[in-house]
Amino acid sequence: MSALSHYLVATISRLVVEEVRKRDDPTRIVIGVSNRHVHLSEEDLRILFGQDAMTVFRPVRQPGEFAAEESVAVHGPRSSFPKVRLMGPPRKRSQVELSKTDCFALGIDAPICDSGQLDLAAPVEIEGPRGRIKLEHAAMVAGRHIHMGPSHVAELGLKHGDRVSVQFDGPRGGVLHNFLIRVKDEWIPEIHLDTDEANGLGVSTGDFGRVIVK
Amino acid sequence: MSALSHYLVATISRLVVEEVRKRDDPTRIVIGVSNRHVHLSEEDLRILFGQDAMTVFRPVRQPGEFAAEESVAVHGPRSSFPKVRLMGPPRKRSQVELSKTDCFALGIDAPICDSGQLDLAAPVEIEGPRGRIKLEHAAMVAGRHIHMGPSHVAELGLKHGDRVSVQFDGPRGGVLHNFLIRVKDEWIPEIHLDTDEANGLGVSTGDFGRVIVK
Repeated sequence: MSALSHYLVATISRLVVEEVRKRDDPTRIVIGVSNRHVHLSEEDLRILFGQDAMTVFRPVRQPGEFAAEESVAVHGPRSSFPKVRLMGPPRKRSQVELSKTDCFALGIDAPICDSGQLDLAAPVEIEGPRGRIKLEHAAMVAGRHIHMGPSHVAELGLKHGDRVSVQFDGPRGGVLHNFLIRVKDEWIPEIHLDTDEANGLGVSTGDFGRVIVK
Repeated sequence: MSALSHYLVATISRLVVEEVRKRDDPTRIVIGVSNRHVHLSEEDLRILFGQDAMTVFRPVRQPGEFAAEESVAVHGPRSSFPKVRLMGPPRKRSQVELSKTDCFALGIDAPICDSGQLDLAAPVEIEGPRGRIKLEHAAMVAGRHIHMGPSHVAELGLKHGDRVSVQFDGPRGGVLHNFLIRVKDEWIPEIHLDTDEANGLGVSTGDFGRVIVK
């Protein structure tokens, strides 16, 4: 081979190997940014829509979960969002996930909660085509968390319930602390941020963060 | 003195000294959160309001600067904000400071800029009681920065134009990189964040960040 060919082979190989290694790095996890959304219980779904199931608009990264065609109005003391998308399938308890920015707009003082931990969640009213209900404990700001499967979490030397920090690159980069590690058999690795966190750090769905493992 | 008196004197002294030392720590700087706002040039102020000066609504931390009584409407391709407050006094060039969340709402793809560096800033229309103008380079997301006076920056071993990281405590804590150090004789130390950054990190005006000095 010529010197040029040698150079090209070496360079291309190095770049490809680097890219593959990046993908093998278990600390590097894709980011999913959650806009405000609502999970409904089966009972609340029936009250608001007169139906038992939602229509799939678009599957999301976690298997079996989806953004629904249906939306509700979310009413706070200060203002309302007329169209907030439902996420399916139904959950045990209805849950309205908001950013802090949304909370200021609505006039709702919602606490930071882990998903499903709603005892301290704030009151909020939601409205569908068939009705309107007040939920006493449903409005919350989702705590930072990372979805993972069992093999991935083991590879990182972590376990369900651990808290880790994540590094984000770019001109608005930084390190956010206190991500809850959540493990389920079928889960695909995904770092969940809300829109405030994502916009504040300058990252979008599909970008990557790096888990800092001590 | 009794043993109890000795204990009380020792404990109170320690707590007071700790508190005073915290205040003496030059790395500990108060946070100021900027909501969206507009700086106008004298020329644009005359076009939009038919007047040469703004009315002080409330002084802000930096000497001579103030939130004005006056507001403008900011128009983007997707939506408008009917009432965005002016900050005074007038600047050399008009500047519309938005968060990324604001940019999505307005439909404006504004870049992250340092204040006054507007060559890459995005087009935006603003409207006052006497007129409406289109500014070709005015809409921007303010780059993170810290105001400081000369003695403070010297105490930290830093200089105008340096970049530093800042640590924020609390349940949404973390470290944000890439704060620009800006020095002026009359400036009071203040870490400036926009609403996305502040909400994402769970901090408010009056909270404190800690500059990480290497």
